[in-house]
Amino acid sequence: MIKKIPVVSQILSANDQVAAENRAQLDAAGVFVLNLMASPGAGKTSLILATAERLPDHIRPGVIEGDLASSIDADTIAAHGIPVVQINTGGNCHLDAPMVRSALPHLPLTALDLLFIENVGNLICPAEFALGADLAVVVASVSEGHDKPYKYPGMFAAADVVLLNKADLSEVFEFDLDYFKRGLAMVNPGVPFFVLSCRTGSSVDAWVAWLVARLLARLTARMERKGV
Amino acid sequence: MIKKIPVVSQILSANDQVAAENRAQLDAAGVFVLNLMASPGAGKTSLILATAERLPDHIRPGVIEGDLASSIDADTIAAHGIPVVQINTGGNCHLDAPMVRSALPHLPLTALDLLFIENVGNLICPAEFALGADLAVVVASVSEGHDKPYKYPGMFAAADVVLLNKADLSEVFEFDLDYFKRGLAMVNPGVPFFVLSCRTGSSVDAWVAWLVARLLARLTARMERKGV
Repeated sequence: MIKKIPVVSQILSANDQVAAENRAQLDAAGVFVLNLMASPGAGKTSLILATAERLPDHIRPGVIEGDLASSIDADTIAAHGIPVVQINTGGNCHLDAPMVRSALPHLPLTALDLLFIENVGNLICPAEFALGADLAVVVASVSEGHDKPYKYPGMFAAADVVLLNKADLSEVFEFDLDYFKRGLAMVNPGVPFFVLSCRTGSSVDAWVAWLVARLLARLTARMERKGV
Repeated sequence: MIKKIPVVSQILSANDQVAAENRAQLDAAGVFVLNLMASPGAGKTSLILATAERLPDHIRPGVIEGDLASSIDADTIAAHGIPVVQINTGGNCHLDAPMVRSALPHLPLTALDLLFIENVGNLICPAEFALGADLAVVVASVSEGHDKPYKYPGMFAAADVVLLNKADLSEVFEFDLDYFKRGLAMVNPGVPFFVLSCRTGSSVDAWVAWLVARLLARLTARMERKGV
């Protein structure tokens, strides 16, 4: 007779372990967290600013900026009066959970409700590293072309929500939205999807309304757990 | 007295060793090789097509397409009657020299003069892996924004030539060309630089003339080595 040993727990990788700790810390502080992933120049920073300015007053944003080098994005965010920490990965092609952990003490967590983590511009590697976020947000843009879900399936499959930015330029780029949506449906059926333009502000409201609803649902669940 | 041991040869990494073999094989076949690197959707495939159609008749192009998944780009190239091999990396974020080596037997090398290797769309990782190319070509695009050399210094430092595509949309994207050029000069002073549009064809001729001159110079050097 073969003795079976039940697997009672999944062994977490070192990164996943730290990501779980990040999430516990952020959840305890009442902070809802987005991991923004995209190609270089898709508009992650523009999305943060367009979203932040449309948030209800009682939802206070903060930002962690991830870049190989420079503090260009953090400077832009700071100029809008939003608390921000810059991580320079020094060549590393993605953020990982320990990097985020090292950034958290530099943010006023108890004074934040929503934390944007802007990952390194890269449509491949960041998808493989959990950070401790509540939602993986993938930002595509019309200028990159309509074939991206077919060519970068891993990233689009990892998304909890997909935003298609620069929609005001769809005609210029002869963007085939149906083709894009078919590709997205192949790799991530039913994923929430918003077509918008951070430059013109078009349809940003719909995304923000969805996001706020998710944030409030999480907050409610947390309060119920605590028996409030 | 301290005895000094001279370092007479650099130990090549396994990838560099294969890259050197690729280069020797391609050089022996008389093929000039470009490693095209860029963000997703910057226009690498469009550049290949725009370049190929402007080549003198006696310079015969071929293509290796690198993608995580799909054969979209290879199908596009093949539809133009150009010999092409598709490499699917299956999630790997860059091409490496062994992948290129495995593709070479599938190309009619003796009937080619110019081989484009279109790397995976990624502005970080591909710069770290030699393939055996003569030139590292980095394709940036106006729609990605003018801050890319500051944010992705490793890629721009690795370039032998930089092309800025989608220049016809500079106004739409409020692209600051001087700022881009200052960043590029910081990480790679004096690198050859062309501003062009593959969509309109604007200034593609200047890049092709430069490329053909480089190819012919290499051919002449090879013939002199052989005492032709």
